[in-house]
Amino acid sequence: MIPNQSLLVDLYELTMAQVYFLRKRRTRATFDLFARQLPVNRSFLIAAGLSDILGYIKALRFTPDALRYLKGLHIFSDEFLRYLARFRFSGDIWAMPEGTVFFPGEPVVRVTAPIMEAQMIEGFLLNTINLQTMIASKAARVVQAAAGRQVFDFSLRRTHGADASVKVARSSYLAGFNGTSNVLAGRLYGIGLSGTMAHSFVMAFGSEIEAFRAYARVFGSRTILLVDTFDLWEGVRNAIRTGREMERKGARLFGIRIDSGDLISAARRARRMLDKAGLRYVRIIASGNLDERSISRIVGEGAPIDGFGVGTHMGTSSDAPVLDVIYKMSEVTDSRGRFVPVMKLSKAKVTLPGRKQVYRVCGASGTYVKDILALEEEKVHGAALLVPVVQNGAVMYNIPGLESCRRLAADEVARLPRDLKRISGVGRYPLVMSAGLRDLSARLARKLRARQ
Amino acid sequence: MIPNQSLLVDLYELTMAQVYFLRKRRTRATFDLFARQLPVNRSFLIAAGLSDILGYIKALRFTPDALRYLKGLHIFSDEFLRYLARFRFSGDIWAMPEGTVFFPGEPVVRVTAPIMEAQMIEGFLLNTINLQTMIASKAARVVQAAAGRQVFDFSLRRTHGADASVKVARSSYLAGFNGTSNVLAGRLYGIGLSGTMAHSFVMAFGSEIEAFRAYARVFGSRTILLVDTFDLWEGVRNAIRTGREMERKGARLFGIRIDSGDLISAARRARRMLDKAGLRYVRIIASGNLDERSISRIVGEGAPIDGFGVGTHMGTSSDAPVLDVIYKMSEVTDSRGRFVPVMKLSKAKVTLPGRKQVYRVCGASGTYVKDILALEEEKVHGAALLVPVVQNGAVMYNIPGLESCRRLAADEVARLPRDLKRISGVGRYPLVMSAGLRDLSARLARKLRARQ
Repeated sequence: MIPNQSLLVDLYELTMAQVYFLRKRRTRATFDLFARQLPVNRSFLIAAGLSDILGYIKALRFTPDALRYLKGLHIFSDEFLRYLARFRFSGDIWAMPEGTVFFPGEPVVRVTAPIMEAQMIEGFLLNTINLQTMIASKAARVVQAAAGRQVFDFSLRRTHGADASVKVARSSYLAGFNGTSNVLAGRLYGIGLSGTMAHSFVMAFGSEIEAFRAYARVFGSRTILLVDTFDLWEGVRNAIRTGREMERKGARLFGIRIDSGDLISAARRARRMLDKAGLRYVRIIASGNLDERSISRIVGEGAPIDGFGVGTHMGTSSDAPVLDVIYKMSEVTDSRGRFVPVMKLSKAKVTLPGRKQVYRVCGASGTYVKDILALEEEKVHGAALLVPVVQNGAVMYNIPGLESCRRLAADEVARLPRDLKRISGVGRYPLVMSAGLRDLSARLARKLRARQ
Repeated sequence: MIPNQSLLVDLYELTMAQVYFLRKRRTRATFDLFARQLPVNRSFLIAAGLSDILGYIKALRFTPDALRYLKGLHIFSDEFLRYLARFRFSGDIWAMPEGTVFFPGEPVVRVTAPIMEAQMIEGFLLNTINLQTMIASKAARVVQAAAGRQVFDFSLRRTHGADASVKVARSSYLAGFNGTSNVLAGRLYGIGLSGTMAHSFVMAFGSEIEAFRAYARVFGSRTILLVDTFDLWEGVRNAIRTGREMERKGARLFGIRIDSGDLISAARRARRMLDKAGLRYVRIIASGNLDERSISRIVGEGAPIDGFGVGTHMGTSSDAPVLDVIYKMSEVTDSRGRFVPVMKLSKAKVTLPGRKQVYRVCGASGTYVKDILALEEEKVHGAALLVPVVQNGAVMYNIPGLESCRRLAADEVARLPRDLKRISGVGRYPLVMSAGLRDLSARLARKLRARQ
């Protein structure tokens, strides 16, 4: 969506690449992209963003415009710029399919490539996984809280920019949302659209009933009337009048929306009023600063709300607007071209060495029991979560459609231990290291400490 | 930056527009875009985003692709789609120049247009002002905390998507940052680039000194060495060795970067080591999860740090990742085409009626004393903050360059009462209503209450 995606890098990725180009052109390395820890209030993460990463890898070229700009910085040699002009990503990528549940410490993307190439894609990969996984993981909580009621993304006005707006719509849909108000996201991803009306619409007419009638005349059985612009009960009464008028024309009012006040008691009274008027089929949609906690409370109280419009808090993951994802080298070739595992030991920033795979172990009922982080060459019991997606620079993965990712996410969450799906409080899922990885880490750590 | 910007709307903006098209084609309205309240930890806001809004207004067209998609939704009439096909924004916009300091309740953008057009641009306007103003306002705090030391945007990997990454670079630069690591932002906005090296770079070489030498050989006096990959003091010693070797070749090591640990004591000891080695000119750059509070502490302690790389917390405005901006109708034409002021009275969502202007009153020293929110036709003492930027759909505003916006922001912040610039604690700036606005609001409120 951004022109010049090749420039979507931190400067140091290009300066390091230039040094690698001169001194380590043949050095290859493996990088793990993983979350260091869970954000607050989260018990699991849902992988999202791979589809954009593969699109980026396919399209990654330094355009003449980009090269002119880089040349003008006067820090890159002509030889390096010529290399960039013919740059193609040539490495291998393994990743978890979108919709996979994963946990901190587990590589969700693993890149093995010439080190200068692996370094150059770092910024885009982190940015992409950070946003989409953060939103999918937040949205999954909202979906849990809604317990089968419909939830719609209304966050366009609060997301961080245009790109985020469509990625939020997509990531939340992947995590189980039922639609979005964002028309561009509908166009780009085929997500169903949802919308009602604004308070200003009601105010623009001489009276509320006039506004309702005008809307219903155009949209018939798709009409959702916003009932709280002036007085809520008067609004519900006007919606009932409109609904009855629609019935006479063979149409049915789809729903009403309540956007303010105590949603639980408002919905109860509105439901009674609608039912008494014979409009049992009219749905009640609630909106207004909702998140998984308020929705969980509403659902817990049994309020008769059929759908929720969720904006700000989901669209910015407001309680945890950052995912602590990092991209760390785990092996690098030596002068003879053999891969040597590496690790970093500084406090709080320990990384695990070697080329790794994540295995998931299921219980008899299909419930997930634990994950095992192992070296790739180890034999481990469990389902391998990282699959090959790019080989020698070519995407060799049949990118699943969004619906299929969404089904995967639903299945994944269904298999999680119940404890991890609570809205308040955080559950812990066991991730263990294989014997091989434990041994290698211990050996390398001893070596590093001895050196220091 | 997004194709099909015309579709970057909430569905309801288009459905309402269709009803307006049929029923209120000639109705005009004024909308105020303003913040309802300050985010936590903020005492003022810095207007940013206008430049993108004007670009959007100029370019806003429904492309054949967009129209095809809308037609396929089967909710829009052919007549309305034909209207969209020739759609041009035809209204007037007044706005505060980018870099202007403003406060909750003050319109930062004011739109007067056919109501269907004013409604259609709502989503883009809110999204744009929300992100860029939120970031500029956060970044201004970081700049305050740094008290003259340099600050660089390192947030690419944590911003919410690609669009946010470049807007964050721009908004933080506008608010006084000195540069960014984001190469695309450099290309798009001419912002100076900054970068060092990653831990993986040091690990990719046989030894730290080898990595330092390789980098210095390529980048000479622009070299900044990351010294904490293994042992920090050994890293500083290796930087000193490299710096001395560089001197022999007539170059000067630019700086070292410390990315972990207790930055204050680390910087002190590193400074002593560098000075003792005769490398007084080598700068110390700090990074690692910094925000305005940690920077303020570091500066308060007098730590010898010359520059800060600031990522996550600034780039997501992590303590307040949302700005509570809203877009509310303040007047609408009646059946005879005369503008009638309107307001909304529901609890916590009161809006102010009429076409308004914001006036700023200065003290003798040039310090800002208070703002006055008034009706446009009133005579008020003070500098008017809203300027005309779009007239009859045409941008008639000479969009200032980014450097000029940056100077304005610096001047604006300099004139704020000191109390508003504290890093901890929040100051309050007086915003008063003019007599005319007070009277109109009271009159309308009485009328509304009587009606209910």
